[in-house]
Amino acid sequence: MTTLTKEIFEGYTYVDGGVCAAKGFSANGMNCGINPDKEKNDLGIIFSRVPCQTAAVYTQNKVKGAPILVTQENLKKSENIASAVIVNSKNANTCNPDGVELAEKVCQIAAKELQIAPEQVVIASTGVIGERLPLEPFEKAMPELVDGLSEDGNGKAAEAIMTTDTVKKEVAVRFMIGDKECFLGGMAKGSGMIHPNMATTLNFITTDVSIHAPLIQEALSEIVKITYNCLSVDGDTSTNDMVSVMANGEAGNKEIREIGEEYEIFRQALFIVMENLTKMLAADGEGASKFLECTCDGAKDLDTAVAVAKSVISSDLVKTAMFGEDANCGRIFCAIGYAKADFDMEKTEVRLVSEAGNLLVYKDGAAVSHSEEEAAKILKEDKIYILVNLNQGEVSAKAWGCDLTYDYVKINGDYRS
Amino acid sequence: MTTLTKEIFEGYTYVDGGVCAAKGFSANGMNCGINPDKEKNDLGIIFSRVPCQTAAVYTQNKVKGAPILVTQENLKKSENIASAVIVNSKNANTCNPDGVELAEKVCQIAAKELQIAPEQVVIASTGVIGERLPLEPFEKAMPELVDGLSEDGNGKAAEAIMTTDTVKKEVAVRFMIGDKECFLGGMAKGSGMIHPNMATTLNFITTDVSIHAPLIQEALSEIVKITYNCLSVDGDTSTNDMVSVMANGEAGNKEIREIGEEYEIFRQALFIVMENLTKMLAADGEGASKFLECTCDGAKDLDTAVAVAKSVISSDLVKTAMFGEDANCGRIFCAIGYAKADFDMEKTEVRLVSEAGNLLVYKDGAAVSHSEEEAAKILKEDKIYILVNLNQGEVSAKAWGCDLTYDYVKINGDYRS
Repeated sequence: MTTLTKEIFEGYTYVDGGVCAAKGFSANGMNCGINPDKEKNDLGIIFSRVPCQTAAVYTQNKVKGAPILVTQENLKKSENIASAVIVNSKNANTCNPDGVELAEKVCQIAAKELQIAPEQVVIASTGVIGERLPLEPFEKAMPELVDGLSEDGNGKAAEAIMTTDTVKKEVAVRFMIGDKECFLGGMAKGSGMIHPNMATTLNFITTDVSIHAPLIQEALSEIVKITYNCLSVDGDTSTNDMVSVMANGEAGNKEIREIGEEYEIFRQALFIVMENLTKMLAADGEGASKFLECTCDGAKDLDTAVAVAKSVISSDLVKTAMFGEDANCGRIFCAIGYAKADFDMEKTEVRLVSEAGNLLVYKDGAAVSHSEEEAAKILKEDKIYILVNLNQGEVSAKAWGCDLTYDYVKINGDYRS
Repeated sequence: MTTLTKEIFEGYTYVDGGVCAAKGFSANGMNCGINPDKEKNDLGIIFSRVPCQTAAVYTQNKVKGAPILVTQENLKKSENIASAVIVNSKNANTCNPDGVELAEKVCQIAAKELQIAPEQVVIASTGVIGERLPLEPFEKAMPELVDGLSEDGNGKAAEAIMTTDTVKKEVAVRFMIGDKECFLGGMAKGSGMIHPNMATTLNFITTDVSIHAPLIQEALSEIVKITYNCLSVDGDTSTNDMVSVMANGEAGNKEIREIGEEYEIFRQALFIVMENLTKMLAADGEGASKFLECTCDGAKDLDTAVAVAKSVISSDLVKTAMFGEDANCGRIFCAIGYAKADFDMEKTEVRLVSEAGNLLVYKDGAAVSHSEEEAAKILKEDKIYILVNLNQGEVSAKAWGCDLTYDYVKINGDYRS
């Protein structure tokens, strides 16, 4: 995976600890036997000692994993209060005749062990679709999983949600609300089947900020549009996408119940963590050898900026050209041109950028001739930035992806074995 | 390329001759030097001895090749009368500062040699975007190209439009309107950058039917929706897509000027030729080892049927699973689920079909367990049919594509060299 450098934001410090960075959260992960490879964690848990205000967004795919349906129902019943996340990999529990019943059973098993109500469990699964989820591994493993909960168990939990991911993905930040020290952290999984639509791959975020669930939901729904939804590995929107944010209030700030300065501090923390996780997902795209970021500046509105940036990042032809380090910029112009948005190509400028250089390649409705040598030097790098300036407004957006390689085909030609 | 069997339609006979099958049309193709490989034709011509009623559809990409703009302008000026098609490969004449001027020059060079008006030329180019089109090869080659026009020159013209295509693509049919023998034939190119949107790759169709241009346009716009627009190789909509239909009236039927029985006979001929060319494009998709067809039956309307069929055929994960001959049917359910249409998955049935078998894999909102052996046998074939029945209406549509292979990545990692 390409190594990324984290962007610095004033007032926020990156810290270790992932989902355990926030006070009052513990986590654990283990192999419970769904994955025959005993070295690979397949079951994870996140737990807050006090119940949390909780918000979530889910995949818009019509085929929804059973855990999605059960989590939605649980949060409805509990009025957005959750205490734990239970997540397994290797089996998506999707398109099974009794998938909902099985997911509910897993919640009951976990709730009993944690001494909470079953509807306070956020449940998620990832893996193969259409295979029956076995209950026995959950029944057997749950006492050990709960017993092993610890404040540095975040890594084990992050490993438990990995499928074709090559690295675990965790980010956390420290910040202040008034005189209270706060933390917000998350973990994510995802490598293929990534083209989020109003949701994402599996992402769990925890914070000790005290904030009312509807405001978490508002921030989450807004930020998901400019982070996870601007990510594409392969154009496939998963059946099991979910992001949840749990806030337990242990930081001791006065509960945030309206939009204002304190809400903005929280919102920015959520943005930083989600944007970092999004970039990590792009860099670890299935088979990826290069990280791609497209920035669209000068758009008349956010929808236009997102549509253009995402169109470039989603193009198989742009992705293969980047893999081949071929400065076939026509592929980029073409992908900008079919973005579903209204703008004028005559005013648009395009630049190819990496640590090795910055090259203008399109202006005044035409390609700008440039040195092939300089273009080749730029594309040799493993982080490629495509800058599109529409020059038609003030709004910007970014989208992230990766190149399309032989290894993507290899991984997905034989995913189940 | 996978060998396809042509579907039989009553009243229509497949004949040889491609764009020269219709009376009064001649064609030619040669290497004029744009392609340094002298063995490869890069310049093609189709000519009708009498001017034709002409209709065309074009790419919806905002970045439009200069030849698209010039053809649109020409047909406007000539009030939909054309006599010739001039087409080159290896250079798309797109994103060039003086592309329109150059394309107009090519029309003038051809028109002079053919002794027609420049606005009676349909011009098209395909190849690399953003490189200046040299005029000299056209100037030098035009006398020889025109001189060599012949009634069996269709093959040479079809070769001239090939880029990464591995075979030339031609289809023609013979049929009767009243007591008049009629012909309609076409040629197409396309292998990658295929995800047509209200247009297609380069396709030129000729007929000797006498029919008024607005009716050709009506039939073409309708049929393109259920043929070329239901084709996806890689999700990339080209900048230079175009289909033109030229009708010279040499069959001697009374000109068709309204919708009725004779219009329907013409319309069906156009459908047969366009559907066959569409399937040939899918089977020859870049790097393809398998031809994929998805049929969506039981839809409430055409948009729903097209959206579902096209969603399945466009999924990189379905395409790689087919390449790997891996019966990972969850990939198919997932792609159905994210189709942008309104339908109920609970009523939907999915079957995996090939010459080796027919297997129900989804019903009642869940995967149907099946023998892995039988599924593997089905997927070993080189033509795979995915049948989706929504059971929610009476409308059907098909979509076509191919698998995603190492060779697709190889071809596009290094397209320009």
